[in-house]
Amino acid sequence: MSILVVGSVAYDTVETPFGRAEKVLGGSASFFAIAASFFAPVSLVGVVGEDFGDKQMRVFRERGIDIQGLERAAGKTFHWQGKYSYDLNSRDTICTDLNVFEFFKPRIPAAYRGCEHVFLGNIDPVLQRDVLDQVEKPKLVACDTMNFWIAGKPEELRQTLARVDVLLINDAEARQLSGEWNVVKAARAIRALGPRTLLIKKGEHGVLMFSDAGSFAAPAYPLEDVFDPTGAGDTFAGGFVGYLASAAEAGEETLRRAAVMGSTLASFCVEAFSLDRLVTLTRREIDERFRLFKRLTHFEAI
Amino acid sequence: MSILVVGSVAYDTVETPFGRAEKVLGGSASFFAIAASFFAPVSLVGVVGEDFGDKQMRVFRERGIDIQGLERAAGKTFHWQGKYSYDLNSRDTICTDLNVFEFFKPRIPAAYRGCEHVFLGNIDPVLQRDVLDQVEKPKLVACDTMNFWIAGKPEELRQTLARVDVLLINDAEARQLSGEWNVVKAARAIRALGPRTLLIKKGEHGVLMFSDAGSFAAPAYPLEDVFDPTGAGDTFAGGFVGYLASAAEAGEETLRRAAVMGSTLASFCVEAFSLDRLVTLTRREIDERFRLFKRLTHFEAI
Repeated sequence: MSILVVGSVAYDTVETPFGRAEKVLGGSASFFAIAASFFAPVSLVGVVGEDFGDKQMRVFRERGIDIQGLERAAGKTFHWQGKYSYDLNSRDTICTDLNVFEFFKPRIPAAYRGCEHVFLGNIDPVLQRDVLDQVEKPKLVACDTMNFWIAGKPEELRQTLARVDVLLINDAEARQLSGEWNVVKAARAIRALGPRTLLIKKGEHGVLMFSDAGSFAAPAYPLEDVFDPTGAGDTFAGGFVGYLASAAEAGEETLRRAAVMGSTLASFCVEAFSLDRLVTLTRREIDERFRLFKRLTHFEAI
Repeated sequence: MSILVVGSVAYDTVETPFGRAEKVLGGSASFFAIAASFFAPVSLVGVVGEDFGDKQMRVFRERGIDIQGLERAAGKTFHWQGKYSYDLNSRDTICTDLNVFEFFKPRIPAAYRGCEHVFLGNIDPVLQRDVLDQVEKPKLVACDTMNFWIAGKPEELRQTLARVDVLLINDAEARQLSGEWNVVKAARAIRALGPRTLLIKKGEHGVLMFSDAGSFAAPAYPLEDVFDPTGAGDTFAGGFVGYLASAAEAGEETLRRAAVMGSTLASFCVEAFSLDRLVTLTRREIDERFRLFKRLTHFEAI
């Protein structure tokens, strides 16, 4: 039931209409790992620079995350800076300093190779395949990607997707990857590339899941105060894969609960900057909000 | 259990990426009435011109809709022409010829005044109040409005909303009406104006309902072929109010099923131009899609 995550560990500088956070812990692997750690043991592979502090390392350790795969390289840690629009629905990247992440080549420690669940964060699809070549025989491989790779390395991405069980992308990415505007048609085209299960994330509008059993729709939790959406997608993935790893089987009903668990974790993520809300979270709070999701969506048959 | 609808009856000329329809039956009262007629007797108040044909009248008669309140005036019928973007998510109005609708002054026939359910289509809030002054003591008043009235007649609209039980608007209108970007805050502000129940329609992203019992979220049905979104909002309202009129009580569980019934009817509306799909619809098809909505959204507790 252990989970391997490979992706970025970063410093984020984020401006929202509600405030600014300077060089706070971020990166796809960070958000995923913290969210997944509520459900199963997590091992993290990534790279940081000499400026990465003990305080940040402690965030992972305190959640019991195995970071022997978090390499420290000469140079600075990946730094992303972004600014959100007044409605939080779009953001501009102010700067992306890849730093040590530019030369990231994932090395999977021997102790991690037997992991049953693998999450490939949004990195070069060639590196994502490199990771799959190093692990033994995972029960489930989940994967994220972005417009940069869809447009820039379409053939490499296709080869990666052929080896992936679950793809998690947003609606714009689904349209770009498939060349179809309609999400149902987009989902069919993408599932034909490999992933049996596709999750299309729509931010404040929730998530659509397409699997062998058909389609499933879950709303986002209607929050009164959304503070910072950074990391919500990776947090969703962490809740989703984490819940699957903790379950006895991965049938349709489990996939559905996992999607709602992803939405549950993401709804906490956006309540504060960085991982600030996730690190104070308890399993009891998670289960309570999952119940609120059930109440939010329930209706009786006619 | 009878329903009174007051609103526009129009000719629409619609261009979508998939085709063009010339002067086909449209208008808020038309879509509402046909949708609601699957659940309860409907009486329609509106105005048409001398060019309004027997063929169009027959559409209402064949669904058993009482059109003694559909006045015929000298001049031409209201004509709206619009063109949708490639993704169907936005549309430009090419022209709006109000014609006889410019001087519409709703006169409620004596036989309609005891209607228990009233739907005020998107017309001048002063006229909406005129209607309420003419009816006896409806159990439920539902209402639509639009940006034109929110910006142009805010005080008149407030006076109308104070007498309304259910308001159905889209997300942009909810933000404009409340001055709040966040939908939860917007909903609280709008409910304080009068409507105990607020439905915020989000098109392909579904609907949010805010009532005394809290919030409810329902997705739109993920359709492979969306042909023409014209009238989907009024069709939603027709399914919603129609279902409520057919129910023994209007508690939270009934409101929730009514919202899903609205989404069900709207999902058929968009499958063809004008009312083409709604007029061939059967109660059996409606119930079957309602069941698909249940399956689409169902997940088990943890």
